Amino acid sequence: MNKTIGIFGGGQLGRMMAQAALPLNIQCSFFEAETECPAAILGPVFSSKTEQGLQDFIASADVFSLEFENTPVADVDVLTQTKTLHPPRLALATAQNRLAEKSLFDELNIPVAPYRAVDSLDSLKQAVADLGLPIVLKTVTGGYDGKGQFVLRSEDQIDTAWAELGPAKSLIAESFVKFSREVSIIAVRGQDGDVKTWALAENHHHNGILSHSIVPAPNSTDLQPVAQDYITRLLNHLNYVGVLTLELFVTEQGLYANEMACRVHNSGHWSIEGAICSQFENHIRAVAGLPLGSTDVVRPTVMINIIGQHPKSEDVLALQGAHLHLYNKSERTGRKLGHITLMPNNSDDLTGLCRQLAQILPVPLALTADMSL
Amino acid sequence: MNKTIGIFGGGQLGRMMAQAALPLNIQCSFFEAETECPAAILGPVFSSKTEQGLQDFIASADVFSLEFENTPVADVDVLTQTKTLHPPRLALATAQNRLAEKSLFDELNIPVAPYRAVDSLDSLKQAVADLGLPIVLKTVTGGYDGKGQFVLRSEDQIDTAWAELGPAKSLIAESFVKFSREVSIIAVRGQDGDVKTWALAENHHHNGILSHSIVPAPNSTDLQPVAQDYITRLLNHLNYVGVLTLELFVTEQGLYANEMACRVHNSGHWSIEGAICSQFENHIRAVAGLPLGSTDVVRPTVMINIIGQHPKSEDVLALQGAHLHLYNKSERTGRKLGHITLMPNNSDDLTGLCRQLAQILPVPLALTADMSL
Repeated sequence: MNKTIGIFGGGQLGRMMAQAALPLNIQCSFFEAETECPAAILGPVFSSKTEQGLQDFIASADVFSLEFENTPVADVDVLTQTKTLHPPRLALATAQNRLAEKSLFDELNIPVAPYRAVDSLDSLKQAVADLGLPIVLKTVTGGYDGKGQFVLRSEDQIDTAWAELGPAKSLIAESFVKFSREVSIIAVRGQDGDVKTWALAENHHHNGILSHSIVPAPNSTDLQPVAQDYITRLLNHLNYVGVLTLELFVTEQGLYANEMACRVHNSGHWSIEGAICSQFENHIRAVAGLPLGSTDVVRPTVMINIIGQHPKSEDVLALQGAHLHLYNKSERTGRKLGHITLMPNNSDDLTGLCRQLAQILPVPLALTADMSL
Repeated sequence: MNKTIGIFGGGQLGRMMAQAALPLNIQCSFFEAETECPAAILGPVFSSKTEQGLQDFIASADVFSLEFENTPVADVDVLTQTKTLHPPRLALATAQNRLAEKSLFDELNIPVAPYRAVDSLDSLKQAVADLGLPIVLKTVTGGYDGKGQFVLRSEDQIDTAWAELGPAKSLIAESFVKFSREVSIIAVRGQDGDVKTWALAENHHHNGILSHSIVPAPNSTDLQPVAQDYITRLLNHLNYVGVLTLELFVTEQGLYANEMACRVHNSGHWSIEGAICSQFENHIRAVAGLPLGSTDVVRPTVMINIIGQHPKSEDVLALQGAHLHLYNKSERTGRKLGHITLMPNNSDDLTGLCRQLAQILPVPLALTADMSL
């Protein structure tokens, strides 16, 4: 093996990172509560539940990265006494704190919806007065896939919202941005400062969880350079190494940043087949100090999540050009179990394929809408 | 996991099969002399050197395949008492015996160079009289990458050739086919009889070992349907399941079959990036009883072997669009250590990339010739 990369987390993102690392003779190890995790087949898993786990994990690899966005900064601080983490601690800490994150966006002139810090019922009332309604109230730390959020639509919800989220102490109130769609931009920065960006993904959600992404996002020619500019500012400011994701809202006033993720992202899974070099391979290349690969699109691609229940593999693979990626996870409501990549030849094919897929998937997603490329 | 596939052999072909199996939640196990083999990172390896190894291997999986073309038929016979092997025993036994193989080609009207069975000095002399010179004398069983062969160019070499290869007892003398180039066709047959064929590869050798393959083979539009027809005859006749490779010579009289390999093939490694569905994934799909994926070419591709010594990974990955596949093998003269896939945009790019690559590779291959797509 050339080098070993230790990864905080051992879920499907770590699994796909390790899959991309293997042909480069790079072995991965993982730090995860449960040693029976999706990444386990590809390398040793050190349990975060055992006393010696972190030290053993730190000893297991040459250089480190993460796939778990809530990787404790305290663990990172132990690690960085002796080893290097990519991405940098500052990026991780910023992304884990919605106020720090918005503040960074402000600093770099990346538009965000107006927001206020909220730490009391009074400050919540003030935020409602300042921002108007509706607003989204979120915990400053924690929460994902729609959890830890409250959408406030009328003033009589203020007490309920505070009762639900107030115990978290530190909240953020954000203006409800009127957006036509959500897109994400994913980019990678190498150790030499080289930045490469994938095409914008248009993301569709179902019950707060990503349902599917279309790449390149339709009608995004004008948006792509703007999004690239925003994420490049972030990467360079943070002296970032590895893959960074920026979720954006498309509004009549242009792109608004929603949040960033210091890792490979569900909306980038399409790149395994759809790009010359995937987000997983380029992340590994960056962390290992290797040159980055081309992020060019090979062919327009749709990535569909498998959520809660598995379809029959034979049904999925019978679809023209379909690729199936399963994560070796047991079924549970709302759980991401795998994804499907479709690379249709044209828009008509896509609509047909998505209709077929909607029939196959046991959990109906947001696939019934007409799709276009 | 959906299913477990046991693979005879644990080299790079098994490694790449298991890599393709992983996203389908299919786990592989391996049967190999050395447990420290390229596939070891992806599944348990049962040693063929231990007494219990074969039985443990048979117990380890639901269905079986192979990546080692010299898999002993005796082992297969033990296996098939309780489990199923894809491809079928008959295909393996035929490919392991050059006389049986040529006889099958004859039976299916697939052109081969004139040949004679040779089992004595007298029959060798008779073969020379019948076929003329030059001829290639080969052992009927064993031998690969140019080993176990003798090219006879004049009658005074007959005694030397016999002294060298005669002890093998069973030989075949083949007319020296005057060919302009060598190509290979790879196809896969599913359990339902569905056959899919990849584009012809044009293969270039260096010291008897495959140096690089260009896909689609240049100027092969007329050859493709003929080659497809030949390999489809073989697949259907043998009731084959899995990937089969047929090596062919391009002559003024058309295509001549050289030999077949009952497995994924080095000249198909391009398909990992260059085809919608790779030879490895389709082989796994076939063995697991799943529908086959499209074998369409995504973009013209060149696959270059890394032989004997490793180049620097950073040098290879700095080439535009290059993909690196290392097999985790130690360096040794003539050993296949990995391969590189290039997907140039056009012929000019290819020539430039190959020149750059020739400078990077420590062992010079047949890359100096002008390349075209």
